[in-house]
Amino acid sequence: MTLHADAAHPDLVTVEVPTHWYNLPAELDQPIPPHLHPGTKEPVTPDDLAALFPSGLIAQEVSTEPYIAIPDAVREIYSMWRPSPLIRARRFEQALNTGAHIYVKYEGVSPVGSHKTNSAVAQAYYNSIDGVRKLTTETGAGQWGSALAFAGAQFGLEIEVWQVRASYESKPYRGHLIRTYGGTVHSSPSNLTASGRAILAATPDTTGSLGMAVSEAVEVAAGDPDTRYALGSVLNHVVLHQSVIGQEAVAQLAAVEPDGADVVFGCAGGGSNLAGLAFPFLREKIHGRSNPKVVAAEPAACPSITQGAYRYDHGDVAGLTPLLKMHTLGMDFVPDPIHAGGLRYHGMAPALSHTVELGLVEGVAVGQHDAFSAGVLFARTQGIVPAPEATHAIAAAARHVADDPAEQVVVIGLSGHGQLDLPAYAEFLDGNF
Amino acid sequence: MTLHADAAHPDLVTVEVPTHWYNLPAELDQPIPPHLHPGTKEPVTPDDLAALFPSGLIAQEVSTEPYIAIPDAVREIYSMWRPSPLIRARRFEQALNTGAHIYVKYEGVSPVGSHKTNSAVAQAYYNSIDGVRKLTTETGAGQWGSALAFAGAQFGLEIEVWQVRASYESKPYRGHLIRTYGGTVHSSPSNLTASGRAILAATPDTTGSLGMAVSEAVEVAAGDPDTRYALGSVLNHVVLHQSVIGQEAVAQLAAVEPDGADVVFGCAGGGSNLAGLAFPFLREKIHGRSNPKVVAAEPAACPSITQGAYRYDHGDVAGLTPLLKMHTLGMDFVPDPIHAGGLRYHGMAPALSHTVELGLVEGVAVGQHDAFSAGVLFARTQGIVPAPEATHAIAAAARHVADDPAEQVVVIGLSGHGQLDLPAYAEFLDGNF
Repeated sequence: MTLHADAAHPDLVTVEVPTHWYNLPAELDQPIPPHLHPGTKEPVTPDDLAALFPSGLIAQEVSTEPYIAIPDAVREIYSMWRPSPLIRARRFEQALNTGAHIYVKYEGVSPVGSHKTNSAVAQAYYNSIDGVRKLTTETGAGQWGSALAFAGAQFGLEIEVWQVRASYESKPYRGHLIRTYGGTVHSSPSNLTASGRAILAATPDTTGSLGMAVSEAVEVAAGDPDTRYALGSVLNHVVLHQSVIGQEAVAQLAAVEPDGADVVFGCAGGGSNLAGLAFPFLREKIHGRSNPKVVAAEPAACPSITQGAYRYDHGDVAGLTPLLKMHTLGMDFVPDPIHAGGLRYHGMAPALSHTVELGLVEGVAVGQHDAFSAGVLFARTQGIVPAPEATHAIAAAARHVADDPAEQVVVIGLSGHGQLDLPAYAEFLDGNF
Repeated sequence: MTLHADAAHPDLVTVEVPTHWYNLPAELDQPIPPHLHPGTKEPVTPDDLAALFPSGLIAQEVSTEPYIAIPDAVREIYSMWRPSPLIRARRFEQALNTGAHIYVKYEGVSPVGSHKTNSAVAQAYYNSIDGVRKLTTETGAGQWGSALAFAGAQFGLEIEVWQVRASYESKPYRGHLIRTYGGTVHSSPSNLTASGRAILAATPDTTGSLGMAVSEAVEVAAGDPDTRYALGSVLNHVVLHQSVIGQEAVAQLAAVEPDGADVVFGCAGGGSNLAGLAFPFLREKIHGRSNPKVVAAEPAACPSITQGAYRYDHGDVAGLTPLLKMHTLGMDFVPDPIHAGGLRYHGMAPALSHTVELGLVEGVAVGQHDAFSAGVLFARTQGIVPAPEATHAIAAAARHVADDPAEQVVVIGLSGHGQLDLPAYAEFLDGNF
């Protein structure tokens, strides 16, 4: 027999797919400040949200239960690629010349290559059981739009995506991916909506923003009774769905590091990736089982945690969404068209902003050059080309272990691969930034 | 505790990484006809090959041992992504309305997204222990070139790649990937070699071919004592390295289908992918443990098995390589620039051609439209966008289960993902082919 039954496979630990999503805010003493109705400025009611979201997601948005069962139909699809691997990045450690044990939780194994599928599948499911026919959404680099297109194909939903113009033009591959799954994709701002036409009239050369694309997708969903809207980050139910990442990582890490994590790094754009990874680690902290520090790595070009105000703001540029209490640079902030399209968002998930205010999470801003330097080093040592978004977390972790040479356990959220972002790597290698 | 210890994960079975490569031809009654020296037409000796290859690979090229131990340094790198998953494609089965159990062995989880890393890592290792400083190679779609660039980064080797012009121009991303790993890449034919200049002088508008690119890479390696050449398919040692695919698949399948496979499909360009998957299944057949049919799916535009002659021919267009006994369309055959760049090769691995002659493998030609139709269906059902090469195997399997509705176990080699080939999918969706 040629397969060695005793052979170790030490750097790759698997566990089972979680049966429940984990809702950290339900375990905190202070609740997340409620979303407010954009007109009345009163806390939104489930009825207010019914024009945009299906009942299952509205219930999750306001849930105070710490655990919510994952429907079988969703978990079955998760099982097509989950549990995602937790990989000890030994070659990267060697290149950094550090005594730290560095683990990456790698979401690039999903069909579309990022963590976004975790919420896309759940959102498509809850819409499908409410009889919704079509979903609209926004996307930056295209990770979320392609994830929702994949999920729509699983549940027979039509998917229409508005992609931020800067990414639509510079990264056409994810638009092709949306179409391959059967969805449609438009450059945003577009002439298809009133909000898009207004933006184009005022700033015809805009590079677009997630806030603009949200406005377009929300407008279309609100105008059609068979259509709902899906958001790829920010809202509580999206953060909830992403908790599968951290639950797996905590269990995988426990098998090889009995004392758990010392520091957890993730990139933060809208916040669901970082929260999805970190909230189960914070569960371990608030229950006294370990004491990890959690760091949200955000781009220097869009530093909502480190430089934004913590206040109520709209999630979109047209003011159509509820007011969210969050770290924000202002709903009309248009970040530079950096390559990490998924991090170009003016606000930050209320759930994550809340944990920042409680001192459970700290922010750090990373410049694009430093991020890609770390990404290239990671690719050359570990083989995986990280998504530009994830390079921010890798760079922050590399800086941390350089500043603190102590032996320690570091977990990095590797939110996706960057194979569709290779032109950005080429520009970096050409010395263009 | 939120992780359900008893939860089933039925569609994804893992085993350990093999400890040995498997060399099917050593177990066959008739040996593979030897390679011949291009000048003398006598069987090549190890000394003849020493200008191109390191000693470890030459020994494997002529080995008569059925099992060859995988060096620890190679197996450690394999373990970064191996064992690759064997996935029951239930949603694809449902879409085909078949009673067949369809499994895909998915090599897209490797760092570069294809099976090519299995040989690249081994080849880089054996060159590094012989003190080689640099490797040259050819690449079609770029899967092999990027795999070798990754492997070179692991062992400190400089990597220089000639990529077939049609792919270099239409698919720039894998060139970026080669550079991200630290390698260099040229469009072939190039002005950097005598053979490239001769081709450009005669046919300046050529779309290039793997045969031309081989000539350029071989020429540069032969002219520098510190440089060797690496081939991504065709030769016996490459086929050998790919046997990890099939060994894992046989073991993974045994855990869920006690009677083993009924039919095994793989795409065949140079042949190493199909042979790597199929030879361990043929081991089961010749030892009487199961009786699988093996089908090599090749493109209708380059049908070396189904339409080529079985005779001695060169592996390249300039006649620099040894003569190989194989199914060939002729060394100067230039296939249409189909999207499956990795299948555009005039010949077929001697080891695979030999098994075809012995009746162990049969060929089937698949047109590009049918291939992409199957690829889109697979993407929409299973999420994974298949590499264009692999869509040929998927289409052949779909045709097979349509023709034969019996309950049966079908294994498909899914040699890589097609995320860097999405423009080809967009052209298909636009109705361009």
